[in-house]
Formats: sequence, structure tokens, C-alpha cells
Amino acid sequence: MANPLVADAFIDFLLFEVLDVEGLCRYPFFAEHSKATFEPWLAACRRVAREVLWPTYRPMDLEPPRFEHGRVVVHPAMKSCWRELVDLGVLSASRPADVGGQQLPLTVASLSHAYLMAGNLSAYGYAGLTTGAAHLIEAFGDPQTRAAFLAPLYEGRWTGTMALTEPQAGSSLADVTSTASPTAQGHFLLRGSKIFISGGDHDLTENVVHLVLARIDGAPAGTRGISLFAVPKLRPSATGLVANDVLVSGVIHKIGWKGLPSVALSFGDEGDCHGWLVGPAHGGLKCMFQMMNEARIMVGVNASATASVAFHEALAYARERKQGRPPGSADASTPPVPLVAHADVRRMLLRQKAIVEGSLALLGLTARFSDVAEHSPDDAARAHAKLLLDLLTPIAKTFPAEKGFEANALALQVHGGYGYSSEYLPEAWLRDQKLNSIHEGTTTIQGLDLLGRKIVAGGGAALLALQQEVTDGLARAGQRGVDAQLLEPVAKALEALVRTTAALGARGVSGDVTGMLAHSADFLELASTVVLGWVWLRLAEASHDRGDDFSRGLQQSARYWLLTEVTRAEHFAQLCESAESSFVDVKDAWLG
Amino acid sequence: MANPLVADAFIDFLLFEVLDVEGLCRYPFFAEHSKATFEPWLAACRRVAREVLWPTYRPMDLEPPRFEHGRVVVHPAMKSCWRELVDLGVLSASRPADVGGQQLPLTVASLSHAYLMAGNLSAYGYAGLTTGAAHLIEAFGDPQTRAAFLAPLYEGRWTGTMALTEPQAGSSLADVTSTASPTAQGHFLLRGSKIFISGGDHDLTENVVHLVLARIDGAPAGTRGISLFAVPKLRPSATGLVANDVLVSGVIHKIGWKGLPSVALSFGDEGDCHGWLVGPAHGGLKCMFQMMNEARIMVGVNASATASVAFHEALAYARERKQGRPPGSADASTPPVPLVAHADVRRMLLRQKAIVEGSLALLGLTARFSDVAEHSPDDAARAHAKLLLDLLTPIAKTFPAEKGFEANALALQVHGGYGYSSEYLPEAWLRDQKLNSIHEGTTTIQGLDLLGRKIVAGGGAALLALQQEVTDGLARAGQRGVDAQLLEPVAKALEALVRTTAALGARGVSGDVTGMLAHSADFLELASTVVLGWVWLRLAEASHDRGDDFSRGLQQSARYWLLTEVTRAEHFAQLCESAESSFVDVKDAWLG
Repeated sequence: MANPLVADAFIDFLLFEVLDVEGLCRYPFFAEHSKATFEPWLAACRRVAREVLWPTYRPMDLEPPRFEHGRVVVHPAMKSCWRELVDLGVLSASRPADVGGQQLPLTVASLSHAYLMAGNLSAYGYAGLTTGAAHLIEAFGDPQTRAAFLAPLYEGRWTGTMALTEPQAGSSLADVTSTASPTAQGHFLLRGSKIFISGGDHDLTENVVHLVLARIDGAPAGTRGISLFAVPKLRPSATGLVANDVLVSGVIHKIGWKGLPSVALSFGDEGDCHGWLVGPAHGGLKCMFQMMNEARIMVGVNASATASVAFHEALAYARERKQGRPPGSADASTPPVPLVAHADVRRMLLRQKAIVEGSLALLGLTARFSDVAEHSPDDAARAHAKLLLDLLTPIAKTFPAEKGFEANALALQVHGGYGYSSEYLPEAWLRDQKLNSIHEGTTTIQGLDLLGRKIVAGGGAALLALQQEVTDGLARAGQRGVDAQLLEPVAKALEALVRTTAALGARGVSGDVTGMLAHSADFLELASTVVLGWVWLRLAEASHDRGDDFSRGLQQSARYWLLTEVTRAEHFAQLCESAESSFVDVKDAWLG
Repeated sequence: MANPLVADAFIDFLLFEVLDVEGLCRYPFFAEHSKATFEPWLAACRRVAREVLWPTYRPMDLEPPRFEHGRVVVHPAMKSCWRELVDLGVLSASRPADVGGQQLPLTVASLSHAYLMAGNLSAYGYAGLTTGAAHLIEAFGDPQTRAAFLAPLYEGRWTGTMALTEPQAGSSLADVTSTASPTAQGHFLLRGSKIFISGGDHDLTENVVHLVLARIDGAPAGTRGISLFAVPKLRPSATGLVANDVLVSGVIHKIGWKGLPSVALSFGDEGDCHGWLVGPAHGGLKCMFQMMNEARIMVGVNASATASVAFHEALAYARERKQGRPPGSADASTPPVPLVAHADVRRMLLRQKAIVEGSLALLGLTARFSDVAEHSPDDAARAHAKLLLDLLTPIAKTFPAEKGFEANALALQVHGGYGYSSEYLPEAWLRDQKLNSIHEGTTTIQGLDLLGRKIVAGGGAALLALQQEVTDGLARAGQRGVDAQLLEPVAKALEALVRTTAALGARGVSGDVTGMLAHSADFLELASTVVLGWVWLRLAEASHDRGDDFSRGLQQSARYWLLTEVTRAEHFAQLCESAESSFVDVKDAWLG
């Protein structure tokens, strides 16, 4: 049987029964939508993912982009992928009709895109990046810039990138040194080097538009002096598109996402690189960060999708491959059993399944808060949803990336020696997955963001909002008859989180920022444990007492996760509270 | 600074202060040895590792073996590696003088070989496999077989392999179907297919000797009908070496260990493949398993070494690479700090360091029990050591493989976006590491072996022996003044292990083998937690109160591991005891 990439039954259940996306259609922005519009959209995404993208995954992994005569040449199969993605309408799926979009809820867009990512992560990457760049111009560009760039991007005639990172600065955007000098004609002259620019050059479309962070001459140091610019590879002129002094200085040999080039770019070596300001001068980082939740949700979906496709591959292999006999029946005259008949193999499969389902549900819930925060007509509902969106985003980005990596390693492990060969696909997805803990803010950065900003946002309002959600979830699950044994770990974990946040917050308030943030990684684990507990209660409640195979499978995932993982919360809480300081105190010279 | 591969100060400390390898020299077998012979041996291993093997690692990773005209051609750099490894005396380092060996304790041999593995895991692989094959012939071969094969193997003129796995059988050796038909000339005619044969063909030496599992005609089904044979690629004849009907049917495209070919072999397609019985007829698996502890210890050292070299690379990178500022000092006008100045980066480094040190110390302790079990003149001491050797081996194989993979992923993570490229080495070691949870018995198999056999061995004597070791360790550490806070988690973990083993053992005794073994993976985690706690007490005690940078670093690793990891024991114990059965009960149809 062909790999389904993502389980249809689960996505349908999630969208229509857990997330009530039909309920979102009450908002004016989604008023044209209903289950009747969502379903054909989902069907179209599934078709493109399975019939168009999936068959190109392996060839694109085997033949990465080449750097030839200063330009990047991508796999020829990418042309038809791109055409189909554009025709599908993926670039503006959740954008408004006035820019050609379909006004789909982000909830529906994200979960339907999971199929495309699972089919071919790199191929989807060009689309995700293009939408991200276009969305920035749509939100912050002046009319002239919007007129120049928006239609070609949303129509897929050009693609977009995010050009943030510089070689010397890495994750530290405060240290960006690219410059932008104003001209009398309204444009700026850009100069600087960027690295790790995904989709930064290719032969897929005639042009690429880079969203570049740079400092306007005389701007203050640090993050408050950074502006955002739209800088095309070819710039519009009276005679059509002309070269804009953007040089590809090299291609990074990535270990995964091999269908999508990552390049180093030089802007303005000849002093002739034009860029157009997007958003206010010196306000570039703020604009960028207004898109950050969406970008990080996309990374979370990338990660979930990559774990999903590998899980389905491992499941199929475990059903087909016969090996050994269960303990207690070692009689070699009986035929060997399929791998799935071994309890520890089922453990590895159920763990992957629970990671995939938990991740997708978390992303769906987070995206739904984004839809409410953006489109609810109710001010209070919007504010409440925004708090939760901000709080959940670092978790929705990191949990699928980190646990997804573990799931991908298990998918390889289930394949045994065959899994260790490139004749089988799990190793490729394992390589793909590793990027998700690095790009769009490393796991370290997500931990600091959660503990240093998001959980303490609104003077405690964010934590309170989460606490209310989890408490409501517990009550609802209890009323619905979910086994009390499953509720208890979530209640305890929540209590541990609230207690720990108060303790760490007190350290911060007393001026001990280092002490507050030292265990940010453990705090991220703790908060993720609570949030996933809440997610699993939702899933357990919605699938309770239905009796079909799908629901029973979900009940088993819920039991597994709630009893095996959520019960770890107290451990992480104690690490945070104990202020165990070995790694804080260790001196460089002691490390070796 | 060049990558040290493994920290000299730590290995010296381990061998001479923790493991008292000089004490082993009281045994007659090691009587010729002393610190004065160990030190030049260590120096020689370090030199070959750093000067000969290390420079070849990357070229060999980039250019894997080629399959040409039915034969395997390996990287040309491997020739000089092999010559130096042979000249060093690595093949027979721990073998007796009467076969040309140096009679080194396995403790010294293992930890010195860690340098060679860290320098180039694949290059070392040819040597490890050759020693393993020769050792089997040395131990179980008849005089004629020993005369034919032993000297060429130990002298490095030929290499050896283990040819156990068959395509249809995988890990299930009971299902081996290769056959061996006796002849009047004393040899057997072999026929069958083997897969994943590391070093199974190459152009490094003129001949390869395969140790093959096969069934003599009429042998019973299952593991009791399996015999062991020495089957050379070229067999000795009156006219010199002639082809022995061993065909390379393909090369596996492994994702790591790229310098060492893994091949599929066909024996006896032409009915002319001669093999010589090694050990008793139908007793092949028993012979093989007598070497298994040593083979699995070697895998553990492979894993530790691979984590070690990556840790040192990450540490050097974190010291050199400047990025951002610590929380609370975000002033971008101050210069950026090295990565190592960030607390969460130090956490990732200290975690890697603790995994590497804990793994190497565990391997050293396990190897020392092997030396005592093999060479102590005292019957009781040998029996006691053998129990502990058997009990510790599944842990010494698995902990470094599983946690080493995590450490290798952290080394990549510390490198950020650069770590995601093949321009940097961490990704290569991450690929290498993944094999160690698969070969020589998967992690699943190690868990079943530990819980189903090793911990209950001798009617409880094995567990009792471990309990005594840990209790003694706690007392000694207490007397030495190690912080009581560090002792407590180990005491609690031990109690949890003893309690859990009794509970699971009772299930087994009552006939519920499935119930006993269901949580074998969690039990392996629990037992590893206890054992590593014991290891870290030993290290903490030996480095206590010394005040130099090295000892302070070790104290920090000890604190980190004992307070962060050993405190997890109760969680694993509860999973085992609760009989949480989601993955046991889940039906195939519920999985998706």
C-alpha cells in the first residue's frame, strides 16, 4: 500500500471534531467557507501531495541543486511540482481575496499543507517561503512596493526568501551589519552578506524577492536599528527586469531538505543593489516578528509531517517484515511473525504515532488561536487567543522538532539494518528533521523566548489563560467519562507548571535574570509536557466511547502519552526549582 | 587546536586511578605488564589515532567503497591505515603471547582503542572484526583450522568477518537457513546467503575469512541446530590460494561507517564453497555467544568514541564562535561573546561530556570485570565478575549507543546552521553513531536480554552482586566526603531497581512472561540509570577534593548526571510496575 503521508481519518477528526473549523466560518473573514469548501480543498492537497510531490522526493534527495556559472540549478522534477503547487493555490491559501487568496483559516491551511510537506518537504519549502515573503510585503509594504512585488509572488511567477542571517551574527540578529543607503529615487542601496538563505537562488522562476534585514545609514546599534527591505534578484525597470547586483557566493551542502537550495548571498558588491523599505525605518525586526508565529507554526508542521511520513513507512514495514517469534514461543518450527507482533516494536510504533498525532493536534490548536486572534470580531476573544498563540508558539515549534527527531530515529530503528541504508527512506527523513530544531530560532532560543517573555506576558495573564484552558479541558474530559487515571497526570503537571513559573518569575523579579533563565530548556520541557497533556485530553475526550478502530487507536496513544510522558512533569519542575547549577557554574577551562 | 579525539587526562585518570589497571598485573596472565608498559602503548595508540587515522576520516566518509567487477574497492587511504594498525599490534593486543599477542588487559585495550575508533571508526572496524573472527578460531578451532587461519589473521595479512545475518532472518538467528554438507575430506560444503557483512570484501589484503553460521544437513530446527564455520574467500590448496565460491552479491549503501564496506554474500552458488567447522557441531551459537560480551563491549566503545570526538569538536567550536550576548546584557555595542558563554550551550556541552565520560567509565568497569572473570586465579572472584560482566554488557552496549546518539545530535546543534551542513563533521558522526543501536543486537534485544536473562541470572545472584557493588560504592563515596545530596538519588534508584526486578520476576515466575517482559525497554532505562549512578559515584569519589580544572570538570559532570538523570529512576520503575499496557494491548488495526 502506498504511504498515506498523513492519516486522513486523523486530520478529518482533528479539523471537524476537535478544532471545529466549521465554527470559524461564523467570522466574517471565513464566511464564504464551510465544510463543503474545506473538503475539496483537502482532497486537492492530498492528491497533489501523493501523486505529484511524493514521487519526486527521493530523486530530489539524491540529486541536490548544483551551483553552475554563478547560478543555482535545481532538480528538473521541481518544475512540475512548482506548477502544481501554484495551480493548487497553496501560495495564498490563507490570504485575503483582495490579493487573490482563498481566505482559508490558518488551521485548515496548516493541516492540509502537512500532506504537501510529508510528500516532499523541500518542494513545499519554496511555497512556504514565498508566502512568508509576500505576506510581509502585503502587511507592511507601501502601495508602490506592493504593486511591484505582491502579484508576481502570490501568483508563483516569482518566489520569495527570508534573508536574515549573516555569517558573523548567526542567531544574533542584533549584530546584523548589512547596510542600506537612501537615495533620492526612493529606493535604498543595499550592501552586505547573508547566509543560509533557503531558496536563495534557483532556475524555477524568473525572479526571486529577498526580504532582507539591514541597517539604514546612521541607524542605532542593536535590534532597534534594523530595517526590512524587499530586494529582488532582478529589479523592474523601464526596459523590463534587470540584474540587481545580488550575487550567489556559494551553496551550502545541507544534509537534508536536499531539493531546496540554501545559499550564501552577496548584496551590492558593485554598489548597485536596489532595495525597497518594507515597514517603518528601524522597525524591521518588529515587522519580522509579527510574522514569526506563523513561520514557527510552519516549522512545527514541517516537523510533524516529516515524523508522520516516516511513521507510516515504519508501520507498513513492521506489518510486512517477518522476523522471530514473541518471547515464550521460541519454537523455530513455527513460522516467524511480523515485526508488529513484538511488543517492543509496537511500543516504538505507538510512540511515533503519539508524537505525530500530538504534534499535529498541537499545531492545529495553535493555528486556531491564530485564526481567532486575527479574525474574531470579539476584542476580548482576540486578545485571549493572542496570548495563547504567543505562549504556545515556541512549544508548537519545538516539540514536533525535538520529539519528531526521536520519532524519525525510531522509524529507522524499526527498519533495522535496512533502515541504516539509503536504499530505504527513513534515514532521509531523519536528516530532513534535524533542521527543525535549528532554523526559525533554535531550541535554546525557543526556551528563552517561552520563559523570558511568553509565559510571563501580560503580567501573568498568559499563564492564567493556559491554566484556564487546561482546567476547562480537565473538567470536560471528566464529564465526558475519560478515565480519571488519565486526568490526574495533567492536573499534577499543571500544578507543577504554575508553581515553577511563580518560583522562576520571582527570581526574575528579584533581578536574578540568569537564575530565572538557567533552566529554560527544562522549563520548555515542563511547559510542553503540560500542553501536550492538555492536547491529549482533548483528543481522548473527542474520541471517547466511539468503539471504531481509529478511535481505539487514538485512545491507546492518549493512554501511552498521558501515563508515560505527562507523568514526567514533576521531574522537570524539580530541575527548574532546585536551581541545579552544574552547567551554569561550570567554567570553560573545566570542560576539557 | 587539533581535536584530541578522546581526553588523555580522563583516560589516564580512569585507567590508573579509578580502574586500578596496575592491580590487574598481579594476575599471572598480566604479570609482564605494569604502568611502564601501558603508557607507551597508550602513547602509540594516540599517535596512530591522531596522526594516521584522523586525517583519513573525512576522505573515507566522502568516498565510500565501490563495487567493481564483483569485487569491492575501498578508499586508497585505507592501505596505510591498515599497515599502521597492524604494526601497532592492535589485532592481538589482548590475546595471549602464544598467538603473537601482547596479553594486555581488555580494560587497557578497550580504552586505548577508543582513540582509534574516534579517529576513524571504519578503519578501526576492519581490525575489530579481524580480531573477533581470529579469537573465535583461537578459542574453538581444531589444530588444523587454527594452523590454517590464525597467523594470517592476527598478523593482518588477511582480515576476518562475522557472517551471521541472513536476509530473511534478520536478528532472528534461529531462522538461519544456510547449509553445510559434510565431505569425506573433513571440510564442509557451504551454501547460503548472508547480508550486512561488514568488511565482507575489499582490496586491502589478499584474503578474507568469514565466520559463518550454518546448519549441518539434518540438524534440528532453531538455535540448537546451528554450527560455526571458517569460510575463506580464497582457500588454501596445494597450489596456493584458490577461489572458494564466495560471491559478493551487492554492497549496502550505508549511511555511515562509510570507510568500511557492508556487503551481501552468496556462499556456494557453484557448490564449491569449503568451510571448516569451528567448535562442536550444532554448538555454533554457543561459541558465538561466548564472544558476545566482548563484541558488545566493542560496540559500546565505538559509540563512546563517536560521541567523544564530536563533543571535542563542539567544545572547540563553542569556544571559537562568537555569537550574541548573555540574557540581561543585550547591549549590541558590546562585543559578542563565544557560544560557551551562554548557559544553555554549556548545558549541551556538559551533557555531552557527561555522556562521553560516563560511557567510557562504564565500558572500562565492564571490561575490567571481563579481565577478572577471565584471568583471576580466584574461583569466587571469577564467578562474581562473570555475573557482573554478563549483567553490565547489555547496558554497556546500549547506553553509549542511545545516549551517544543524543550527544552527537547536540554536537550538531551547538554548530547551529553550520552543523546542518556536510562542510562540518558533526553530521557525519551522527550518521556513524546510529548503527550502534542496531548491530550486535538491537536495543530491543538488549532490553530483553537484560530483563529476561541477565538480571535474573543465578537465581538472583546477578542482581545481588550489582546491589552489593552499588551499596559499597555509596559507602565509599560517603566516607570520602562526596556530597550526600549526590548519594541520595543513587540509593533511591537502587531501591527502585531491586523492588521492580522482584515485581517483574514474580510475574515471570507466575508464568506471565509477556507481562514480565513488556516494559523491557523501560527496565533497561531503569537499570542503566542505576548503573550510571554507580559509575558517577566512582568518578566523583576518585576526583573528589583535588581542586585542579580536570577534577572540577568531572565533579560538575557528576553533579549534572546524578541530579538530572539518576533522579529519573523512579519514573522508569513506575512504568515497569504499573504495567501500563497501551502498546502491549494495541491491535495492529488500531495503529492506522
